[in-house]
Amino acid sequence: MKKETYASSGVQIEKAEHFVGRLKDLAKRPAHDKLWKAAGGYAAIYPFAADLGIAVTTDGVGTKLLVADELDCHDSIGIDLVAMCANDLICVGAAPALFLDYLAVGRLNDERADAIMRGIVKGCDEAAMILAGGETAELPGLYQPNHYDLAGFAVGHVSRKNLLTGEKIKKGQKLIGVASSGIHSNGLSLARKVLPSEEKWLRLLLEPTIIYVRAVLEVLEKHPSSVAGIAHITGGGWRNLLRLCKTVGFSIDSPLPLPEVFDKIASQVEVEEMYKTFNMGMGLGLIVDSEAEEIVSIFAHHGLLASVVGEVTDQAETIAIKGFDFVLKAKHA
Amino acid sequence: MKKETYASSGVQIEKAEHFVGRLKDLAKRPAHDKLWKAAGGYAAIYPFAADLGIAVTTDGVGTKLLVADELDCHDSIGIDLVAMCANDLICVGAAPALFLDYLAVGRLNDERADAIMRGIVKGCDEAAMILAGGETAELPGLYQPNHYDLAGFAVGHVSRKNLLTGEKIKKGQKLIGVASSGIHSNGLSLARKVLPSEEKWLRLLLEPTIIYVRAVLEVLEKHPSSVAGIAHITGGGWRNLLRLCKTVGFSIDSPLPLPEVFDKIASQVEVEEMYKTFNMGMGLGLIVDSEAEEIVSIFAHHGLLASVVGEVTDQAETIAIKGFDFVLKAKHA
Repeated sequence: MKKETYASSGVQIEKAEHFVGRLKDLAKRPAHDKLWKAAGGYAAIYPFAADLGIAVTTDGVGTKLLVADELDCHDSIGIDLVAMCANDLICVGAAPALFLDYLAVGRLNDERADAIMRGIVKGCDEAAMILAGGETAELPGLYQPNHYDLAGFAVGHVSRKNLLTGEKIKKGQKLIGVASSGIHSNGLSLARKVLPSEEKWLRLLLEPTIIYVRAVLEVLEKHPSSVAGIAHITGGGWRNLLRLCKTVGFSIDSPLPLPEVFDKIASQVEVEEMYKTFNMGMGLGLIVDSEAEEIVSIFAHHGLLASVVGEVTDQAETIAIKGFDFVLKAKHA
Repeated sequence: MKKETYASSGVQIEKAEHFVGRLKDLAKRPAHDKLWKAAGGYAAIYPFAADLGIAVTTDGVGTKLLVADELDCHDSIGIDLVAMCANDLICVGAAPALFLDYLAVGRLNDERADAIMRGIVKGCDEAAMILAGGETAELPGLYQPNHYDLAGFAVGHVSRKNLLTGEKIKKGQKLIGVASSGIHSNGLSLARKVLPSEEKWLRLLLEPTIIYVRAVLEVLEKHPSSVAGIAHITGGGWRNLLRLCKTVGFSIDSPLPLPEVFDKIASQVEVEEMYKTFNMGMGLGLIVDSEAEEIVSIFAHHGLLASVVGEVTDQAETIAIKGFDFVLKAKHA
């Protein structure tokens, strides 16, 4: 049986990576040198005052929108939108503060637009942000009357000493995985292609992305010197861990439980492709130098399943997963 | 002959205004009280330090995207995107610093995506911002392969004393109009409906929005106490002037020259609707207490046509335009 891949679902990954590479060259300006360097590129951080880094990031929810459409259920997609941005901010050590949304519709539908915004506001509450602004655009002719798109923009703040640079990451440190709720907001084009278009599976796909903000802020406050790096596991799957530091790798031997949706997808997608595309049960990874047990228990207090899933190795830019004979390698843009 | 209106072009303006009203109630949180209040609501400003307001705004370019599509000419739409955000930031007195873009496509096309990004980078250069990040999403199934959408997010900074609150606006002050390059990025759905789909008119519609940032920053630096308010003339047309202060109105007797595109549109749209929808030749309005001549000459040095077009009156929330018997009234969301 022919296996599907993220590429075969219509997403041109390499092309996108080349585009981003060209764009970096095109956009480069001297003022970029003022940006603080954080691990993983999850957010840009600009110091507007001596010790005040303002972290900014933007994201969308991809074709998860089409799942919301198919179920005509729009009250949680806004949570995903906020999650995608807010979880990126905490990876650089920033505290989220402000959120802005862009909602574009073919034709404004009150009930649906209200549901979308309820989700965004709920997400902002969970992420300790306020919805500070936004744009609602009615674009007849560009979107089908029943289609819409969403983009989010988040602003946070971080002091220099709290910036997560990845420099403290080293061999032997523990990797704590924090459970995802399912597919979150990445790899949906592939998942939609291989899953039956039945309500059961669509509901599982629509499960909102977990917002890890409050738990992580508590971890960073109580154990500031223990956390060496944080990775939000998004597009690119577990390879996101390798964005934090180019001189180390990971060995994972006690993964978190695999959500049901991934079992079903795995019947049509090679396992290596699965780990390169999906979060595989781990929505967030924390590299910790000490106090792993205390940190796991903070997540538990926030109702989040977390455990030590592996450790940092000196096998640079590779991830070995117990029970599998492949090794994940870093993506290079 | 039946006249067209913005509403008849498929944009449900009142519905959108009601939506924004409901949203404000839904999103309201105690932390909103910390936001600095600037005139016109062009950007949200949050003080991340005692005298450091970080101003944030988001916008898109509306159905101007469809004009770019029709001409298959994508290298200036990014300028519009940056302009829509950056011109909003200067209306609160903020200096633009960072820009992020969201580009969503049905299918990534290298040549087109590069052209779009060249425009964004050019816009950032003109607006004295760096492109600090962005998201490119390939969303097969949501967009037609040849369609795309763009959203922009801009961040600026302002000190408390430079914040334009509108409080200094009073009767007798001069209104300086700064010329637009044409339709800019608002009212395109109506313009496309009434104009012939011929290259001549499409090219005029695609003319990039002027970025007023560098000229305005020089004005604010050299004449900080003369400027009482700045209005970016966007959706809502000249009524944007009335957003700055609820206790005054305007009398306009020497308007700027009307770009050709509006003459043509005017054959099918009532003149009052024109002034309520389009910039009518004035892309930016500055209310000044003094030094109008010096300020006009700064715009001239930047290659921008500006002149005193009228003055502030005590006829609250109304705009009288010489030669017309209607009076524009404020929009209320």
